[in-house]
Amino acid sequence: MGFKVVAEDALRQLERDLMAYGCAVEQLPAGELNSCGWRVRFQAPSGHHFELYADKEYTGKWGLNDVNPEAWPRDLKGMAAVRFDHALMYGDELPATYDLFTKVLGFYLADKVLDENGTRVAQFLSLSSEAHDVAFIHHPEKGRLHHVSFHLETWEDLLRAADLISMIDTSIDIGPARHGLTHGKTIYFFDPSGNRNEVFCGGDYNYPDHRPVTWTTDQLGKAIFYHDRILNYGFMTRLW
Amino acid sequence: MGFKVVAEDALRQLERDLMAYGCAVEQLPAGELNSCGWRVRFQAPSGHHFELYADKEYTGKWGLNDVNPEAWPRDLKGMAAVRFDHALMYGDELPATYDLFTKVLGFYLADKVLDENGTRVAQFLSLSSEAHDVAFIHHPEKGRLHHVSFHLETWEDLLRAADLISMIDTSIDIGPARHGLTHGKTIYFFDPSGNRNEVFCGGDYNYPDHRPVTWTTDQLGKAIFYHDRILNYGFMTRLW
Amino acid sequence: MGFKVVAEDALRQLERDLMAYGCAVEQLPAGELNSCGWRVRFQAPSGHHFELYADKEYTGKWGLNDVNPEAWPRDLKGMAAVRFDHALMYGDELPATYDLFTKVLGFYLADKVLDENGTRVAQFLSLSSEAHDVAFIHHPEKGRLHHVSFHLETWEDLLRAADLISMIDTSIDIGPARHGLTHGKTIYFFDPSGNRNEVFCGGDYNYPDHRPVTWTTDQLGKAIFYHDRILNYGFMTRLW
Amino acid sequence: MGFKVVAEDALRQLERDLMAYGCAVEQLPAGELNSCGWRVRFQAPSGHHFELYADKEYTGKWGLNDVNPEAWPRDLKGMAAVRFDHALMYGDELPATYDLFTKVLGFYLADKVLDENGTRVAQFLSLSSEAHDVAFIHHPEKGRLHHVSFHLETWEDLLRAADLISMIDTSIDIGPARHGLTHGKTIYFFDPSGNRNEVFCGGDYNYPDHRPVTWTTDQLGKAIFYHDRILNYGFMTRLW
Repeated sequence: MGFKVVAEDALRQLERDLMAYGCAVEQLPAGELNSCGWRVRFQAPSGHHFELYADKEYTGKWGLNDVNPEAWPRDLKGMAAVRFDHALMYGDELPATYDLFTKVLGFYLADKVLDENGTRVAQFLSLSSEAHDVAFIHHPEKGRLHHVSFHLETWEDLLRAADLISMIDTSIDIGPARHGLTHGKTIYFFDPSGNRNEVFCGGDYNYPDHRPVTWTTDQLGKAIFYHDRILNYGFMTRLW
Repeated sequence: MGFKVVAEDALRQLERDLMAYGCAVEQLPAGELNSCGWRVRFQAPSGHHFELYADKEYTGKWGLNDVNPEAWPRDLKGMAAVRFDHALMYGDELPATYDLFTKVLGFYLADKVLDENGTRVAQFLSLSSEAHDVAFIHHPEKGRLHHVSFHLETWEDLLRAADLISMIDTSIDIGPARHGLTHGKTIYFFDPSGNRNEVFCGGDYNYPDHRPVTWTTDQLGKAIFYHDRILNYGFMTRLW
Repeated sequence: MGFKVVAEDALRQLERDLMAYGCAVEQLPAGELNSCGWRVRFQAPSGHHFELYADKEYTGKWGLNDVNPEAWPRDLKGMAAVRFDHALMYGDELPATYDLFTKVLGFYLADKVLDENGTRVAQFLSLSSEAHDVAFIHHPEKGRLHHVSFHLETWEDLLRAADLISMIDTSIDIGPARHGLTHGKTIYFFDPSGNRNEVFCGGDYNYPDHRPVTWTTDQLGKAIFYHDRILNYGFMTRLW
Repeated sequence: MGFKVVAEDALRQLERDLMAYGCAVEQLPAGELNSCGWRVRFQAPSGHHFELYADKEYTGKWGLNDVNPEAWPRDLKGMAAVRFDHALMYGDELPATYDLFTKVLGFYLADKVLDENGTRVAQFLSLSSEAHDVAFIHHPEKGRLHHVSFHLETWEDLLRAADLISMIDTSIDIGPARHGLTHGKTIYFFDPSGNRNEVFCGGDYNYPDHRPVTWTTDQLGKAIFYHDRILNYGFMTRLW
């Protein structure tokens, strides 16, 4: 997973900060990815690799013109996702990963799940006013991926997305539904290559000085799927 | 299940028509039900009892004034159902039941399900431009009830209803979701006394000269639950 | 404006009923309109010509297949109107027109506007459970047209329609807004040839035994445009 | 207008930064406003006074519990605004005001309006991923207020808000409608004391490295009211 940073000097500063924090850092050259400048790669304690970059071809918001832009582009196809929203990672060492993301990268904790001993078993991190930009769930194996999520605008768009999934007989996992955590609205589905994807809309707004919201593991079903209030088999068993 | 008819003379005519058709008919006196005039009760070949009546206390649309009515009543609580929508019955003798409802009572066939032999195993009947006013699914036992359904206005209202169901930890069966049959949007849930209820919105418009829509039993999962495309255990096993 | 009737014998019966009622009736041959059978034309006392026909090429609901139809057609363009909804006529002789439509053609009165003398100056007629299928407003000249209206599914669809109108710089009259009469949601706009069109969704459900809803002319602004509560210049001045 | 800052030390730092930048700064004691800590007040070059504070009674998101919070509070009344959204100020010295907000306070420019000479006559500033947190329009008088805006969740909520405004016969200015600038959805209305308020939902997401969107004054009608494409009299004439 990669994050775009605001500018070249911020990228260099973050690289220094990561090294000072004790992270092994790797530089990847400009152009290795299409239309992308040089990147800094590092591994979080959870086992996941992340990348930072400052230069990226600018396509505009949803492809709209920068001057007098219409409400939306007329030639959208399919679900019409507005942007990448977040990813959910499974791995261990949540406290160390939390420290890295909050102390070095500027994230703050928006939502968390505590088990019966008060141990944080899930952490949802934001660096904007969005519900979350990346999330981690405790798992004994490092570096696993649960899903990536794309942003839709409305609950109507989620219905439309679910209809489209059915029209082409793509495998759906769950939804349309609401999450308890973040209160966002969701569909999980498996694309033809088998990856779990989410389309997501809504979700609580956050600011860095908000107290994190806590869900407790005895309410985990409701925390994940607010309406069904149980974790379904598909959600729990497939990781990458 | 009861149907209000337009006027007293229509009620008397329908009573004669039912008897002429060979239906046993029973009269129930005015006042036996609160604020309701006399009723005609008869049994359909499917085993279900239905009632007709012409007089009923008129409370107005959604309780709104008849003169210069505002958009909606301000003091609504809960799911804010607009009206009763339909009921789904399980029973046998679908062809005879179809004849009675179409030839005597003025319904027409809107949607149907055909099995691999071309036998009609489900029939959705309408007497308005609504998707359906009553529906029957073939079942070896007579006179069973699957659910009653209440009308909500929008897909947003369905989300709100699902949220309310979760807030009071009521048992949900499925939804928010779309039906293939009728294309309406739905939640099934069990009220505290254990009955299955539906809140429903949307659904195809129909007119009596429309050709009935056909779903085939090899697509029954999609016909019932368009997004999940499978019949869940709860839907199939509880009848009254 | 034309109405499709359920079958050939209904068309012949209605022709006889119109003549018995004293209406001059004209037959128009099959094929004069593409894919349309023979028609009965008559003039209402309001000065408008209406036509009835029984045969029309059947394209299916929204162009969907009759067997296992998906939720909606994937190749829709533009506003994606589901169907023709209604038309609003201006003319005189509202009582005689009401009699013709209710006594011969089977309509019933759903909404009306009364002036300070209790005279009905507008009548909204339905023959389904829709809010209205045709409407008349009193006007000293016979046979004028205010607008034709097309049905959209949701308030989200109305926003999308308003956006599309702006994207191609088409002249908008008013909306998105709600009507007081019918409580439906609306946009009026002028197409490039200058005609006023409406896209409409929602609206009260009706049945023939409902009491007509009354709006009074002292609340006419709110009756027509529930949010602005005034009649705008464009709405009042352009007729055809 | 006041902004809450993340913590006490940030407040002290911002106070120093404002003074270093040449702003006159005033300290207001804790408790002068209910449930609010000490504040820093300064005047922007546009003539408006702003305040910063770090301590404020924490009521939680929408009043929901911090632990296992339900989707929304059940006892909401009226329009159910989620939070304060932004305010629109009228005044002069836009460039100096822009410098102060971007160089000292951490805002970035999200949208702007340029006149035919390329002069910036409106600036919409954000410090989150929201469409805007404060906006300024050029006006010869200093320190005027156009409106304050409250956040609603959906386009459905805006319809509901417009209905409520009509039910109590409050003066509406415009809407429900879309803005071209920010693409947000809007209603302006005047409360009984005569102030212009907005309820707002949607709107483009922004990040600090996005290029500002430009609207040009020849398209100002569409920039402000995307559907009507003209500035109405009420919008242009009332300031505070």
